[in-house]
Amino acid sequence: MRIAATAGMDALLVTHPPDVRYLTGFTGSNGALALSGGRACLFTDGRYKTQAKAEVTGLRVVVEQKPATTLAAEWLAASGAKRCGFDATQTTVAGLERLRKALPAKLHRAFFAPVEGLVARLREVKDADELVLVRRAADLGCSLFEGVLEHVVAGATEAEVAAALEFKARMGGAEAMSFETIIASGERSALPHGRATTAKLPRRGFCTMDFGVLLDGYCSDMTRTVHLGKASQREWDVYHSVLEAQQAAVAAVVPGISCGEVDEAARSVLRRAKLDKFFSHSTGHGVGLEIHEGPRLAAKQEQVLETGMVVTIEPGVYLPGEFGIRIEDMVLVTQTGGEVLTAASPKAWIEL
Amino acid sequence: MRIAATAGMDALLVTHPPDVRYLTGFTGSNGALALSGGRACLFTDGRYKTQAKAEVTGLRVVVEQKPATTLAAEWLAASGAKRCGFDATQTTVAGLERLRKALPAKLHRAFFAPVEGLVARLREVKDADELVLVRRAADLGCSLFEGVLEHVVAGATEAEVAAALEFKARMGGAEAMSFETIIASGERSALPHGRATTAKLPRRGFCTMDFGVLLDGYCSDMTRTVHLGKASQREWDVYHSVLEAQQAAVAAVVPGISCGEVDEAARSVLRRAKLDKFFSHSTGHGVGLEIHEGPRLAAKQEQVLETGMVVTIEPGVYLPGEFGIRIEDMVLVTQTGGEVLTAASPKAWIEL
Repeated sequence: MRIAATAGMDALLVTHPPDVRYLTGFTGSNGALALSGGRACLFTDGRYKTQAKAEVTGLRVVVEQKPATTLAAEWLAASGAKRCGFDATQTTVAGLERLRKALPAKLHRAFFAPVEGLVARLREVKDADELVLVRRAADLGCSLFEGVLEHVVAGATEAEVAAALEFKARMGGAEAMSFETIIASGERSALPHGRATTAKLPRRGFCTMDFGVLLDGYCSDMTRTVHLGKASQREWDVYHSVLEAQQAAVAAVVPGISCGEVDEAARSVLRRAKLDKFFSHSTGHGVGLEIHEGPRLAAKQEQVLETGMVVTIEPGVYLPGEFGIRIEDMVLVTQTGGEVLTAASPKAWIEL
Repeated sequence: MRIAATAGMDALLVTHPPDVRYLTGFTGSNGALALSGGRACLFTDGRYKTQAKAEVTGLRVVVEQKPATTLAAEWLAASGAKRCGFDATQTTVAGLERLRKALPAKLHRAFFAPVEGLVARLREVKDADELVLVRRAADLGCSLFEGVLEHVVAGATEAEVAAALEFKARMGGAEAMSFETIIASGERSALPHGRATTAKLPRRGFCTMDFGVLLDGYCSDMTRTVHLGKASQREWDVYHSVLEAQQAAVAAVVPGISCGEVDEAARSVLRRAKLDKFFSHSTGHGVGLEIHEGPRLAAKQEQVLETGMVVTIEPGVYLPGEFGIRIEDMVLVTQTGGEVLTAASPKAWIEL
């Protein structure tokens, strides 16, 4: 209950699946964890009865016909708690209304009070057990990049490249990809989120590959951009500006630096190259049980990096109608700086 | 604006990505569609600048540094609207607070008023263009089942079966799987949501395969359960009870019937076989741009089926520690009954 107490509550309701998993080990898609005065109970539905009992130890598990959140609200109300936090960033307006309706009439509507990302904040710093899993996911990701290059040939479709990559991921033990694989070639590389399509890889042009695996619940995330055929001087120059920006941001990683400063480390390199206006997104994000977690590495973000955080560093430059380039690593914040977890995949220029 | 007027609003904010896609064609993960007095504007962020302009026609598209929802709130406030609906089932409590903070002080906090699933309701009935895409997705799903059976052999891992299936999906044009592939074999088949693991397929036992593709934005969803090796009489009997329940529910599909009645059609068959308490979930759900849409085919649901809806029919029986069986089709509600869209995959007993 320390986490609830820090928010001035004497009870807490946790419903976001990665948060529930983090706190209990339960991996189902529907669970409501109720915490009150040193007691805790996990509510779920019939689909997960066997699974919940296998995954969760040291915690009461209740499976009934009613919705899990309704059961949790009733349990919390009966627990004697006065004020129960719920995560306002993960609870819909309709969901909150349902929670309130499940309370007995004598309890004020203000029983449920919003807190923001309480468990998400805990999850930003990975412990030793988690880092083992994060490293394994990152390693599997790197092995995919090495294996996929033979499929990156003119005339193959982006989808075929994705298929080969995702097949290797599964055979390597991944339970899924951590997000929809991005294979964006030729002019499509200028789309920062260009999903793999039936477009054919060009004889000359870039191919950006942004992908990640989900392995034992933890996500990897990396991007490499390679060139097919002979590149122009401009393609070479822009690539190396992006690479320099990426390396500058990686080098900036150290406990205590603000996320905005890491973003600026990448952005300033691109500004000097007059490419900053084509860097249309932020520099990175935390990664763990979810593909996008805190902290957010964006301009002016004041949150500071802490030892044990795992973040992506992924600047890119997108020239509409021409080409785009993005280079992304996962970086662990160590006591002395940043350790690149995806270092096994080279970032130096690759011409196929 | 008809959809806003039906809810008593003169403006509407749409942010749920499948809803935005349905109304505008924009496929990015972050877009805010603002509708007010016959005018409309789509707001998104820099990552989707090129993509949004390519995908959206007949609609103003605005890309700025601020969050899309903030821009949309400002535009709506300036549009002269008095009351703007937002989807309470898709907007978080924190998201609503941010929207309200983006309003000028003179506008009352009640400017944003909750509506539930307005666009989701429209999406339940598929139009002719959508049905072409739904059928294609269902057909691709069926072709995967046919192809995967050669991989369903004792000693292969569940993950290998999933890998083979997902590779064929990609090569067949799928942009992704529509949900995490379920391959649950042996005792694990008793887990309704048993993800594919490194568990090996047994020499004797069931293997449940529940999978779907995402093709041109539309989801397929189907389940088949096959038996490896010689089955026991009990396995055979339970399989045929589930099959009978599934066929009874499919036969019940007709415009005007309530979702609860369809659920009961399946459940009553299992009740007669004394298996109903092992059917621990609902009978089905709508499927389209999302894998889980309305309507919900569950006990006591009063919503009626309408021509053009596409729903799953998927009863199952799960005997903890023994085995489980689920059989699922996608069914289109036609003027005269139900058309099984996944009929190309046999449901009759398969022993491998």
